[in-house]
Amino acid sequence: MTESGPPFGDWVDSVQRRTETALEHFLPAPVIAPARLHEAMRYAVLGGGKRIRPLLCHAAGALSGAAPGALDAAACAVELIHAYSLVHDDMPCMDDDVLRRGKPTVHVQYDDASALLVGDSLQSLAFLLLAEHCAVAPEVRIQLISQLAIASGSRGMAGGQAIDLASVGRSLGVEELEFMHIHKTGALIRCAVRLGAACGQLDPSGHAGLDHYAATLGLLFQVVDDVLDCEASTATLGKTAGKDAAANKPTYVSTLGLGRARERALELHDEALESLASFGDAAQRLRELADFVLTRQH
Amino acid sequence: MTESGPPFGDWVDSVQRRTETALEHFLPAPVIAPARLHEAMRYAVLGGGKRIRPLLCHAAGALSGAAPGALDAAACAVELIHAYSLVHDDMPCMDDDVLRRGKPTVHVQYDDASALLVGDSLQSLAFLLLAEHCAVAPEVRIQLISQLAIASGSRGMAGGQAIDLASVGRSLGVEELEFMHIHKTGALIRCAVRLGAACGQLDPSGHAGLDHYAATLGLLFQVVDDVLDCEASTATLGKTAGKDAAANKPTYVSTLGLGRARERALELHDEALESLASFGDAAQRLRELADFVLTRQH
Repeated sequence: MTESGPPFGDWVDSVQRRTETALEHFLPAPVIAPARLHEAMRYAVLGGGKRIRPLLCHAAGALSGAAPGALDAAACAVELIHAYSLVHDDMPCMDDDVLRRGKPTVHVQYDDASALLVGDSLQSLAFLLLAEHCAVAPEVRIQLISQLAIASGSRGMAGGQAIDLASVGRSLGVEELEFMHIHKTGALIRCAVRLGAACGQLDPSGHAGLDHYAATLGLLFQVVDDVLDCEASTATLGKTAGKDAAANKPTYVSTLGLGRARERALELHDEALESLASFGDAAQRLRELADFVLTRQH
Repeated sequence: MTESGPPFGDWVDSVQRRTETALEHFLPAPVIAPARLHEAMRYAVLGGGKRIRPLLCHAAGALSGAAPGALDAAACAVELIHAYSLVHDDMPCMDDDVLRRGKPTVHVQYDDASALLVGDSLQSLAFLLLAEHCAVAPEVRIQLISQLAIASGSRGMAGGQAIDLASVGRSLGVEELEFMHIHKTGALIRCAVRLGAACGQLDPSGHAGLDHYAATLGLLFQVVDDVLDCEASTATLGKTAGKDAAANKPTYVSTLGLGRARERALELHDEALESLASFGDAAQRLRELADFVLTRQH
């Protein structure tokens, strides 16, 4: 229990619940034609996921004084981009994975063509949410749209996936590996923090520290992912474990070794906390999220 | 030669040229990492295509008094969405086509995973163009983004593709067929016209007529496409001919017969021209485009 709000676990629950409710509201109802596509979009997004990006968006919004209700559209837009990337990433022509969040992946549950269209439609919907449902001034809304487009596109997440594909079977140095993850995972995590902060009022001097926090947390997230992928079982992860190693993809563990990867996670965690030093109590949730990302088991 | 500008062919050439130049400028250079992805994005978009949607955007902009330079970003955004849909539509899990605009399709020239990421990245880039490069007031820009997101997504183009997939092997009535095409092709064509008009100043009373023109032209485009697909050779089309019939997909020709499909094209052409009646000379290019869509050979 901290002085400035409910315990971390309760706050996480409340943000996850409000995100689920908002996503249910924003996703087209399955009765709307084409019903099967809308049903598959809901299958891909609802009822699972840690909602790390919405949590970061809400935590950064708390730092900048935005009310939770003003953050739902931005949080959901980032989550929809993340969900679309998982659907496309799981397809046979990419990682060919059959299990995600403990359920059959979209192309297994439906079919490949549906998975393609589900991802495409979720991306459009993300931009629609920012354009129509984000209660900030039009100039700010355009900045959010621009940032989400950059973070999602060829110079962000999709570009990182292209680098990832090109790296299969190669041995990468740690700098190359980080370059890939800064794009593949980092860009959208950083965007979640930026969008949340932009929904409130943040002293301009705070942006650099917050951005450094977000960039560091993005790498931390990936290092922990690689360590978990090496250590955990498929049942605990809710997705296929050991997949990257089996696919001969470079990971932090294959590049640094397991012991050094664990150390790197601790270093990044410390660095993330340091970049929040000037914020005081307002950054409480962001600090707790850094702890959460470090210690998560799945 | 008409009174109010260069001959239609010259105008088409000039819009196609300026669109090509703008797309070259807006697409990331192939030297920017990830280079292979950026090269593939340029391969997918540049050096081909009739640019019907940019032509419609510029023609509607001419009607509303927008300068050509104010229309490039909107015209390119719509064309990028169209290009991404072709790349994904050609993939093995969709139409599995090997030829597009007389060249190997993206997944043939590169690979399936690259084609997936090319399409995803082109969609993000379309929204980035509207957010960053469209020289209209922020409120208007947000409307354009919202309209493009709706036209592209599950209640527009992607939804139409889902209906198309579900219709394979079924015999559709003409109303069902039109419902599919209103989404699959019509939504984005209509959006091109709306975006062009919104970049200038159009008397509010003009929107209904212009929108009816665009909706009718979208159907006309598809009827002519089906007739050409039935009549023309692969060499003339620059894409595989007879593909829809071979895939047992319902078309206007399979639903109405070739003679009645040709008549339907003439009816739609007349209806499109009628909806422009109140505009006078300012709608010249839109009328010429309706003629062009009716009489095109590929």
